[in-house]
Amino acid sequence: MVFWKSLFSSSDATAASKTTPFEGDPVEGMGVNRTNSESRIFFSTERDIDLYELEELCDAVGWSRRPLRKVKKAMQYSFLVVSMWEVVGAKRRIIGFARATSDHAFNATIWDVVVHPDFQSQGLGKAMMKYMVKKLRSEDISNITLFADPHVVDFYGRLGFIADPEGIKGMFWYPD
Amino acid sequence: MVFWKSLFSSSDATAASKTTPFEGDPVEGMGVNRTNSESRIFFSTERDIDLYELEELCDAVGWSRRPLRKVKKAMQYSFLVVSMWEVVGAKRRIIGFARATSDHAFNATIWDVVVHPDFQSQGLGKAMMKYMVKKLRSEDISNITLFADPHVVDFYGRLGFIADPEGIKGMFWYPD
Repeated sequence: MVFWKSLFSSSDATAASKTTPFEGDPVEGMGVNRTNSESRIFFSTERDIDLYELEELCDAVGWSRRPLRKVKKAMQYSFLVVSMWEVVGAKRRIIGFARATSDHAFNATIWDVVVHPDFQSQGLGKAMMKYMVKKLRSEDISNITLFADPHVVDFYGRLGFIADPEGIKGMFWYPD
Repeated sequence: MVFWKSLFSSSDATAASKTTPFEGDPVEGMGVNRTNSESRIFFSTERDIDLYELEELCDAVGWSRRPLRKVKKAMQYSFLVVSMWEVVGAKRRIIGFARATSDHAFNATIWDVVVHPDFQSQGLGKAMMKYMVKKLRSEDISNITLFADPHVVDFYGRLGFIADPEGIKGMFWYPD
């Protein structure tokens, strides 16, 4: 577990580390001057995320609400959970999220990618996905897949994802 | 654990159940008269499959070999593993396989679907996939997905899978 103290100067850290354990990777060049000099953006792979805060993030992009019991289970059984945080002083706010299922050997599939509207179009979604791909690759996963809505196909394309390579089709089951 | 005895008449069962524990669901109307009156086809969700037998099955359809260490891990961390067996007397042979990753809550993705060439074009692949979908649905998974090679898109289409619904694209990551 990495505490806030690893992310801040010693004086800030002393106060913050007493209250909130936080494992985070700073995003280089991101967020530093966003609102003021104290704002920073971090990624985390901790999956102990407040489900109400996560729901608020998903609400902000207009997703249908899902039972928190199932969201909790999905987080528990995901192979990788990535979240993105804006940290100002001792306060933090979740501003992005994504997770991946996997067989822990060959394949991973990325689901539920969301960036808060206030933080879109600044390269943060791209940075979060790059972070995610890097984490999956570091776990020796060779086949990273996702299902992209039409309006984000180009976004993922710029990250190196190919739609329908060699004619492979993404398919969804529906009852007869 | 269900033993052979549940699958056969009492006399066969007594001998077989001493040697091989086997959890299987008989495939109605399949295999009964395939080679002779003793041949039966069964499905199983047991994941303790001999990896060399599985490799032989995958060899038969021309798949590239994969490290057995990773195959074992993938089986372990799959949400569902389905195998299909031909049983003649006390002998059984694996003739089909498929597995699914999942978050145990919303999504499942089906991988590595294979039917031995000797048993293709007889409705067995279709029966195996229906069995798989039924199992996933019984676990309250609502979103069942897969990535289909071009030559099997119609096969999955007949099972109720839709390619690119609402323009959603299956995408694969490749290094820049």
